[in-house]
Amino acid sequence: MTKERLYLYDTTLRDGQQTQGVQFSVPEKIAIAEALDEIGIDYIEGGWPGANPTDSDFFAARPQTRATFTAFGMTKRTGRSAANDEVLAGVMNAGTPAVCLVGKTHDYHVTTALGITLEENLDNIRASVAHMVAQGREALFDAEHFFDGYKANPDYAVECCRVAYDAGARWVVLCDTNGGALPREVAACTEAVIAAGVPGTHLGIHTHDDTGCAVANSLAAIEAGARQVQGTLNGLGERCGNANLITLMATLSLKEPYKSKYETGLCTEKLKSLTRLSRKLDDILNRVPLRSAPYVGASAFAHKAGLHASAILKDPTTYEHIVPERVGNSRLIPMSNQAGQSNLRARLKGMGITVDPKDPRLAEILDEIKAREDRGYAYDGAQASFELVARRILGLAPEFFEVTRYRVTVERRKNPAGQMVSMSEAVVVVTIGGERMLSVSESVDAEGHDRGPVNALSKALVKDLGPYQALIEDIKLVDFRVRITQGGTEAVTRVIIDSEDGQGSRWSTVGVSPNIVDASFEALLDAIQWKLIRDGAKAV
Amino acid sequence: MTKERLYLYDTTLRDGQQTQGVQFSVPEKIAIAEALDEIGIDYIEGGWPGANPTDSDFFAARPQTRATFTAFGMTKRTGRSAANDEVLAGVMNAGTPAVCLVGKTHDYHVTTALGITLEENLDNIRASVAHMVAQGREALFDAEHFFDGYKANPDYAVECCRVAYDAGARWVVLCDTNGGALPREVAACTEAVIAAGVPGTHLGIHTHDDTGCAVANSLAAIEAGARQVQGTLNGLGERCGNANLITLMATLSLKEPYKSKYETGLCTEKLKSLTRLSRKLDDILNRVPLRSAPYVGASAFAHKAGLHASAILKDPTTYEHIVPERVGNSRLIPMSNQAGQSNLRARLKGMGITVDPKDPRLAEILDEIKAREDRGYAYDGAQASFELVARRILGLAPEFFEVTRYRVTVERRKNPAGQMVSMSEAVVVVTIGGERMLSVSESVDAEGHDRGPVNALSKALVKDLGPYQALIEDIKLVDFRVRITQGGTEAVTRVIIDSEDGQGSRWSTVGVSPNIVDASFEALLDAIQWKLIRDGAKAV
Repeated sequence: MTKERLYLYDTTLRDGQQTQGVQFSVPEKIAIAEALDEIGIDYIEGGWPGANPTDSDFFAARPQTRATFTAFGMTKRTGRSAANDEVLAGVMNAGTPAVCLVGKTHDYHVTTALGITLEENLDNIRASVAHMVAQGREALFDAEHFFDGYKANPDYAVECCRVAYDAGARWVVLCDTNGGALPREVAACTEAVIAAGVPGTHLGIHTHDDTGCAVANSLAAIEAGARQVQGTLNGLGERCGNANLITLMATLSLKEPYKSKYETGLCTEKLKSLTRLSRKLDDILNRVPLRSAPYVGASAFAHKAGLHASAILKDPTTYEHIVPERVGNSRLIPMSNQAGQSNLRARLKGMGITVDPKDPRLAEILDEIKAREDRGYAYDGAQASFELVARRILGLAPEFFEVTRYRVTVERRKNPAGQMVSMSEAVVVVTIGGERMLSVSESVDAEGHDRGPVNALSKALVKDLGPYQALIEDIKLVDFRVRITQGGTEAVTRVIIDSEDGQGSRWSTVGVSPNIVDASFEALLDAIQWKLIRDGAKAV
Repeated sequence: MTKERLYLYDTTLRDGQQTQGVQFSVPEKIAIAEALDEIGIDYIEGGWPGANPTDSDFFAARPQTRATFTAFGMTKRTGRSAANDEVLAGVMNAGTPAVCLVGKTHDYHVTTALGITLEENLDNIRASVAHMVAQGREALFDAEHFFDGYKANPDYAVECCRVAYDAGARWVVLCDTNGGALPREVAACTEAVIAAGVPGTHLGIHTHDDTGCAVANSLAAIEAGARQVQGTLNGLGERCGNANLITLMATLSLKEPYKSKYETGLCTEKLKSLTRLSRKLDDILNRVPLRSAPYVGASAFAHKAGLHASAILKDPTTYEHIVPERVGNSRLIPMSNQAGQSNLRARLKGMGITVDPKDPRLAEILDEIKAREDRGYAYDGAQASFELVARRILGLAPEFFEVTRYRVTVERRKNPAGQMVSMSEAVVVVTIGGERMLSVSESVDAEGHDRGPVNALSKALVKDLGPYQALIEDIKLVDFRVRITQGGTEAVTRVIIDSEDGQGSRWSTVGVSPNIVDASFEALLDAIQWKLIRDGAKAV
């Protein structure tokens, strides 16, 4: 059977940015676009050029991608030509190969919100799409409020779609803008548009999760004939979010009837990076990943029920709908020491540490990791700290130096010019081979700005480590992530630090404490110790 | 048209407890059962009596409810009679009016996991259900792995259901145990069971969210004829969770075709407590409520897009699928750099500030917000700080006091017992009406633990604010979120603080600085100033 091509369209950078509290920077948008391109998404919608400075800057700096880059905008206003509409011009000037224009299809919105006639709206759709096509762009028409519009005035809603298609739109995208549609009506409406002359190979579906059915609505439209599906990573998006493209990618690739019927830009190998892709977005947003997320959540293959866990050990298919590794996830069986230990040995081997399978210290390491995770540590993103925990138990972590004490001071006061300024200072006392070394540093950078207490502490710590100085001098703190792991007064702060050396090699360490400075200090110390071990330093 | 009765079955206390990290205490189970009963759930499944001490204790202490209390268990084992099976006896002895017994319906599980013949399994189902019925209990049969079983051996899977029904089961519940089913197959399988002789009025549906379709699968089964739907509050449950009963309650009550076709135990008035019910569960679990949750999430009716927000002001139905108040939720028009002036005026109006649409200071406020967002501020989640920015520009923010300087010290050193301990201390100097007040605080909590520099600073700041002291004394810091908004050495720290007063009212403020202590200080200052304004304090 020849598979039909099904296109994946990502709008994380545009609709995803409508999520409350989400505001991507240009470098973040670039990182996300590259990750989307790598996994095999067909279209990347980058934002609305002209609507805000970040989106405009991003289009100027957008990476080269195999995926079709798309700029979002809206159909021209009544009373001017498409060529003379400056909003449309802003979208066009972003220079993307594809342009997606949203337009009204719900009669009430046309006459009330826009205050124009139904015919004028059809003209706007027609002229805007034709203009883009004439400029050599691939045109997409986002049929706003399509499902509500269809319920109110089916003929008009369908007519808007047909007009866009006839004007040359490569895709007419049926949008459930308010998110209230349910699978049965999505299927029926999609069939109606196809029956009215817009081929399914030119129809897309764009859903929202306001009834918890965004994924099911997307599947219903595909079953009815639509061949483009839109969504966002982790279901980001306005209100309750968009269809979760992570979930859809997995279902379309792994589940019948989809996997036999359709071909996407994803391949089996790429699907294995799905979990990593999902976590990457959360990392960028500094969000705690949703444990219960379909396919990629940390709990998605966690078997807590005793009956389930024991059956799983005999045959994983008994309580798993897919093999977790296919999406880059892994099984979690709380009581399974056997599985845990072989995992651990493999991980240690990757670090160059070989341990006998019968070594009782394997269990000790697992217990220590679990106890630390209960206290707020997270080792998924802090391999270097994980290695140090194991090395300490295995007797493979020399004590290079000891920090006897430190003191960090943050002050805010008026400077001589009468402005309020802040300033941090750190004193660190280290003992190396019986010798005490005092170091002091300020937090002020080259431009005279205070970079804060962690910066001062970090600088003081690496200022003089005696015999190790040559090995640590090229350590650079390249990223610093903070997460409060519990709410309220019992909050614990987790700090993850990424360090880099002169050769560009990177490693991550973690620290946990109710005191953010102390959590940072722990992560800094781990970063230095890991580098000294890796570079073969000898304890004095 | 006479409505058909549709029954709601909650399993938060049983399947919900399979969530990783969830373990209810007896008082928590009682509180949840009472809340479920109050909203109008028909069946409350309390747990598996005999399986663990908490569940047994809970059944002994369970509250009197209008809802039918149900104990969960499994069908008898082969080789003993139902009357002599001690696991079944434990379930029976809980003394509930209804009993739900899970049994195998997938041939592979029968022969492999149980190691018995297909006929023996049918006997176990038949005898167990008949035994419960003979004891005067309402019997439910949970058809485990029904959908996978149907795919493997449809005749056998259906036969298991029919045997249970013929033995007197009030309900046969089709369970998607592994969570991998999709709406279309759920509908087809449900229809097949009805065609085989189990009436839809005796069929229930129990789904899991492993493909993100738990709610849609439940709706598909109802459309196919099932008249009992199972789920959990907020979609708790093993792996990715169960069908979210909160979402289902709203959809079944508010959406067509369900609202015209079916009657549940819910009424319009009760539905208004849906948001409160959802938050109550999160409160009990000490979880941060999911902002994007359908219907009840804090973002479910948040309109961030400028175009949406301005249309909402004209007519809320333009971008809302239901009226938020119907589920006890409310509309939110957050500030962001995508918002326009109409959005801003609506927001200010909500704060009791009326501004003329022609007032040039509206543009000034938007510019200031935009400039601040470029520097790393985020006002979506910090409404109180937003209000202060606007008030300062509008001349409506009195200067109650001035912080002349502060100093925070973090030290780590050996205590007299030889352990490394950390300690923070803050000194704050405030000027109020020309008078200087010095305050000092330490960060140590009641148990002697260091809570860090922000805690010390917060305590010092509120220690003595002279004439305002009475107004600020009940401020409690309830949450503290940190985000590094750029990587590397140019990192800027954004701190968002949630505060609460004695009446339980909450407000959020934001601070930004490369120095995390200073960012926290800014957010703390805003929190105090907002409260003083709200409570009508007069500047001295």
